[in-house]
Amino acid sequence: MKIVCKNDELISAINIALRAVSSKTTMAVLECLFIEARNGKILMTSNNMELGIKTEVPGRIDEEGQVAVNAKIFSDIARKLPVGNINISVDENYSMFINCGKAKFRIAAQSGNDFPVLPEIKKDSFITISEFTLKEVIRQTIFAVSDNEATKIMTGEHFEINGKNLTVTALDGHRIAIRNIELKKVFDDKDVIIPGKTLNEISKIIEGDAEKEIVIYFSQNNILFELENTIVLSRLIEGKYLNVKQMISPDFDTKIKINKKELMDCIDRATLLVKESDKKPIIISIENSSIRLNMNTSIGTMDEEIDVEKDGNDLLIGFNPKFIMDVIKVIDEDEITIYMTNSKAPCFIRDEKVSYNYLILPVNFSTAR
Amino acid sequence: MKIVCKNDELISAINIALRAVSSKTTMAVLECLFIEARNGKILMTSNNMELGIKTEVPGRIDEEGQVAVNAKIFSDIARKLPVGNINISVDENYSMFINCGKAKFRIAAQSGNDFPVLPEIKKDSFITISEFTLKEVIRQTIFAVSDNEATKIMTGEHFEINGKNLTVTALDGHRIAIRNIELKKVFDDKDVIIPGKTLNEISKIIEGDAEKEIVIYFSQNNILFELENTIVLSRLIEGKYLNVKQMISPDFDTKIKINKKELMDCIDRATLLVKESDKKPIIISIENSSIRLNMNTSIGTMDEEIDVEKDGNDLLIGFNPKFIMDVIKVIDEDEITIYMTNSKAPCFIRDEKVSYNYLILPVNFSTAR
Repeated sequence: MKIVCKNDELISAINIALRAVSSKTTMAVLECLFIEARNGKILMTSNNMELGIKTEVPGRIDEEGQVAVNAKIFSDIARKLPVGNINISVDENYSMFINCGKAKFRIAAQSGNDFPVLPEIKKDSFITISEFTLKEVIRQTIFAVSDNEATKIMTGEHFEINGKNLTVTALDGHRIAIRNIELKKVFDDKDVIIPGKTLNEISKIIEGDAEKEIVIYFSQNNILFELENTIVLSRLIEGKYLNVKQMISPDFDTKIKINKKELMDCIDRATLLVKESDKKPIIISIENSSIRLNMNTSIGTMDEEIDVEKDGNDLLIGFNPKFIMDVIKVIDEDEITIYMTNSKAPCFIRDEKVSYNYLILPVNFSTAR
Repeated sequence: MKIVCKNDELISAINIALRAVSSKTTMAVLECLFIEARNGKILMTSNNMELGIKTEVPGRIDEEGQVAVNAKIFSDIARKLPVGNINISVDENYSMFINCGKAKFRIAAQSGNDFPVLPEIKKDSFITISEFTLKEVIRQTIFAVSDNEATKIMTGEHFEINGKNLTVTALDGHRIAIRNIELKKVFDDKDVIIPGKTLNEISKIIEGDAEKEIVIYFSQNNILFELENTIVLSRLIEGKYLNVKQMISPDFDTKIKINKKELMDCIDRATLLVKESDKKPIIISIENSSIRLNMNTSIGTMDEEIDVEKDGNDLLIGFNPKFIMDVIKVIDEDEITIYMTNSKAPCFIRDEKVSYNYLILPVNFSTAR
């Protein structure tokens, strides 16, 4: 194999492919990038058996061939080369020669014959979505995905397509994050669970351009994201997702409208007093046109008042401060509205169009503080 | 105690004082900042028993007093407060109240009666030096200080004052770093060993302003740095420093003048192939008007040529690449000059005025590569 490519273009491709390279594996070949130069295309593939990425490297092929090379070493070298054209060649013993300017590297590589190629999937069922929308949807829900592998279903996000509507749901037993998006046209109904890890990697690969469309193909067990010069293939999580609709209620007895930044700063300060090990609630006392937030731990106490617009009853309610923070961090509006019923019932943070809807369970606390 | 101060001024003072707070200690009071409000001054002190810092916090005193408060908690809270005036008060039980805007904190503090106050030192023997010069001198030598506590003397830097000249020396058994500075006037001769850790902290505290002068006072066992609103007191290392003059020679058989950036980039690339555990030398072959650098490890090989100006004999010599890098990183000139004798004798990197002089011992390597 003999190829020539440009520094920055090689590094961009490596950065994408690295996202599916195994770090902990007993199969050394999964720590490799698999490079094929054939039919006028240079393709770089990585595969950790859950997630696979194939991306094109712009460049010139002087001799076709293939090679698998340790991803970390190859990536480190590529990054440190002087700016210019990089000549990469592989001899019959799979020694790889990397030349750029006056710098000449030789490293050991392998044939890549045992590299697990990405399976082909049927391209009949699909949706299209802009990079921007997909990236936003992931950012606004991914924090609620469970990291407990024991309940596999909750480690993924539910993507449900219904006519023109896409509903994305994540939950972990204490909270639910829902985003409703209107797609640009009607697609076939679909209902899949995509691993949270896959969505995390996808959202790092895509730039979030509102003009660029991604095609997402669905097969029985896999999902394929087709980007500009890259495809990302992932397994789906098997099983039936939880029915969250029955947990969501539009009713409330107390509604407050609050400045997002003030609430965020206040919770930020309150959590200073919480040691990692203990789970202290932030207690919110809603009275008239202000709320008082209180945190009380072994380190000390904090009290703060914030002005709000209130509808309905007064209320004393406690929350895990992290759960509130996770939600308000991803909301773009300056004001948020919180709907509550009583100190034991779930609270909801949602906008009027219900383009987002977050459910958070309150925390029990002793009122004898 | 009751004081009022501004957010940013409190945080600046905390940032300075934090540099002498113990992180690992059995004495809880050493994890504290000691705050005194007396005689119109608010002073904040930290002391880890090696290094002590006392800095002034601008502010208003409404009631004199003192308190010792956990440095981490106090610092975290100060940073998260809204912008504005911070009211700090301490009651008779040493509860500390920190109020700023609508945010109110209460944390436990202590009297500070057992806080180790900084000893007074005589101010008869001193030098003055600009912040800029001191910061530069430290940066250009500190890397050669040994971290091996077994040879205590080598964990410090030798500061030797001789008339108008200050010579700063650091060494670790494989290399020596020397900086010669001309002071603005003649001071008393002096010869002390300052702990490397102290110099590290000092260089982080000072901004490096060429117009600001620091006064450095010397006593039998201590050194005191007097900055604008801050004093830093450190123990000196006892003992007699090594006589490095006899190790320095102006003679050479080979001299090369080389572009610093090209050499730096090349060594940077070569060290990609070195795993942390092994100590592979970079081998430099000097022939005619270019040098060839070669690295050969279990990961692969690298070869690179760099054009140089050469005087004297051809030479094949090996170095620990890190030792070369450490030196060239701190030299400001674009070109550096390396003086060598043979593959076993120390090499020197110095400028013509010998304002800096770095000695590096070469590494033995098998020529049967």
